[in-house]
Amino acid sequence: MLVGSIEAGGTKFVCAVGDEEYNIVDSHHFPTTDPDTTLSKVIDYFQQFKISALGVASFGPLDLDKKSANFGSIMASPKLDWRNIPIYQILKDRLHIPIFLTTDVNGSAYGEYIIGRLRGQKLNSLVYYTIGTGVGAGIIYDGKFLGDLGHPEMGHVFVKRHPNDKGFEGICHYHHDCLEGLVSGPTFEVRLGKRGEDVSLNDPVWDVMAYYMAQALMQSTMTLRPSKFVLGGSVVNDTFLKKVRQQYKLLINDYISLPSLEDYIVRPLVENNGSATIGNFALAIKQSQQE
Amino acid sequence: MLVGSIEAGGTKFVCAVGDEEYNIVDSHHFPTTDPDTTLSKVIDYFQQFKISALGVASFGPLDLDKKSANFGSIMASPKLDWRNIPIYQILKDRLHIPIFLTTDVNGSAYGEYIIGRLRGQKLNSLVYYTIGTGVGAGIIYDGKFLGDLGHPEMGHVFVKRHPNDKGFEGICHYHHDCLEGLVSGPTFEVRLGKRGEDVSLNDPVWDVMAYYMAQALMQSTMTLRPSKFVLGGSVVNDTFLKKVRQQYKLLINDYISLPSLEDYIVRPLVENNGSATIGNFALAIKQSQQE
Ligand SMILES: Nc1ncnc2c1ncn2[C@@H]1O[C@H](COP(=O)(O)OP(=O)(O)O)[C@@H](O)[C@H]1O
Ligand SMILES: Nc1ncnc2c1ncn2[C@@H]1O[C@H](COP(=O)(O)OP(=O)(O)O)[C@@H](O)[C@H]1O
Ligand SMILES: [Zn+2]
Ligand SMILES: [Zn+2]
Repeated sequence: MLVGSIEAGGTKFVCAVGDEEYNIVDSHHFPTTDPDTTLSKVIDYFQQFKISALGVASFGPLDLDKKSANFGSIMASPKLDWRNIPIYQILKDRLHIPIFLTTDVNGSAYGEYIIGRLRGQKLNSLVYYTIGTGVGAGIIYDGKFLGDLGHPEMGHVFVKRHPNDKGFEGICHYHHDCLEGLVSGPTFEVRLGKRGEDVSLNDPVWDVMAYYMAQALMQSTMTLRPSKFVLGGSVVNDTFLKKVRQQYKLLINDYISLPSLEDYIVRPLVENNGSATIGNFALAIKQSQQE
Repeated sequence: MLVGSIEAGGTKFVCAVGDEEYNIVDSHHFPTTDPDTTLSKVIDYFQQFKISALGVASFGPLDLDKKSANFGSIMASPKLDWRNIPIYQILKDRLHIPIFLTTDVNGSAYGEYIIGRLRGQKLNSLVYYTIGTGVGAGIIYDGKFLGDLGHPEMGHVFVKRHPNDKGFEGICHYHHDCLEGLVSGPTFEVRLGKRGEDVSLNDPVWDVMAYYMAQALMQSTMTLRPSKFVLGGSVVNDTFLKKVRQQYKLLINDYISLPSLEDYIVRPLVENNGSATIGNFALAIKQSQQE
């Protein structure tokens, strides 16, 4: 059986075809332009293969409520062209196969959960944060995605401000100094006048950002007590991750007992942002078993 | 069928016997002294009745991991006498009936979930916060309690400080200005030199506290998107709740669409802290069906 994966992002749609062991058989990128053009190319691409099911991890926000009239649509997206585009239905009407649609970060979360379990990790739950252009998170719990009235938006939570960062307003258009407003990639330009790629790992900004991310992880911990945290996205590096672990330990201050943080707060097992592809394959297979 | 309920608190154990429609048939309070004395009295009390199952909502922290050697024990409690007391096993060995043990606030959460559903509310999930001597929360999701490596400890999360409250250190012994350190009942004495019961509803402290509670609800929202929030505990009053709703709306700033807040962020349906009793009855009945 072959299955398909779409990672629908703001700049490109990454399409892949895989087998039941999650091996990538073929893949192709298409630029994200207008919905008609992009989705036609994507559909043409998949029609070359005999895929039995498709997993789609998309930018959003998405309406994922099966009882909603808008189920499977992109909602109030900052990408205006894509607002109210029923991406699930368009793909379904043309491909006639089982499709599972979820958020981009949920796809990555699921991939890390699947691979972790395949490698023998005892995972009953997992929280995946991405820190890139934005900040988001996906949660797997008992094999399912959490989010009742909608999917998580864990980039948009407030944190206690770092004493050396009180002058920075934050860049979230909705909340100023929410987590995304304080630690997303574009904050480097505003704080330091240069892109994150060009910021030294010795720069004190990493301590400030680690302090905020550690609080976000602490919030998730105190809420869900998950089996594992995975931090993905281009902003994350090993030096930063070490600082996050240190701050997390200091902040929690032995209030609860925790696993060894080296294994608990980690980077993705699948390199080069490949987690979502595997997650999508796995979700496609699961969906094909259910339909 | 009769079932039993224990609300095990730091000052008293509230015991009740109920029927399958959650009517209280009998109830009795015992002071919380040493474990031997208190638990003997509780067991003697229940042995007067032919109860088929028992629900216990206890102070903690509790080990609720069924695979743990300490399953059903009170762990590192501030009540030193009660540390490492295997409350589940002691009750089980003497009463020989199905017992469901959970945290105090989980019991209340479950009661509100059950009663809400009985009254026709569409609840797939519910978060119950209590603000009293401490701050805690319980989460029901798809009919089950959330918490993988342990139960939630949502009082111990950090929030952005209110501009008029920057001088206050917070009273949590572990974290100073975590949520509990900023909004629990005993903060009134430290901030204002008088007990919460004696603080005017016009005092600006309520705005400060509402700002923090609104952030906690926002964190839960962005994580779980629950069907409903219930706020219990002696600190909560209608004036305060209105302020929490206002701040919550201001902070979220239409980033996501929300139900009408008057129905979304509410006080308990069951008055006089009675939610836990009903929750315990319902959990006892559920447990008796499973064993
Ligand atoms: N090595 C790096 N260190 C810090 N920031 C980086 C690094 N590489 C990219 N970034 C920043 O990360 C953001 C892009 O994040 P990325 O995860 O690649 O994409 P997206 O979130 O759009 O999918 C940009 O703001 C970029 O400046
Ligand atoms: N009406 C009130 N307004 C504000 N605070 C109150 C009020 N009544 C009690 N408190 C405070 O609430 C705390 C007790 O909370 P409560 O929910 O009754 O008990 P517990 O959390 O111990 O079960 C105390 O700090 C008390 O001063
Ligand atoms: Zn925001
Ligand atoms: Zn604390």
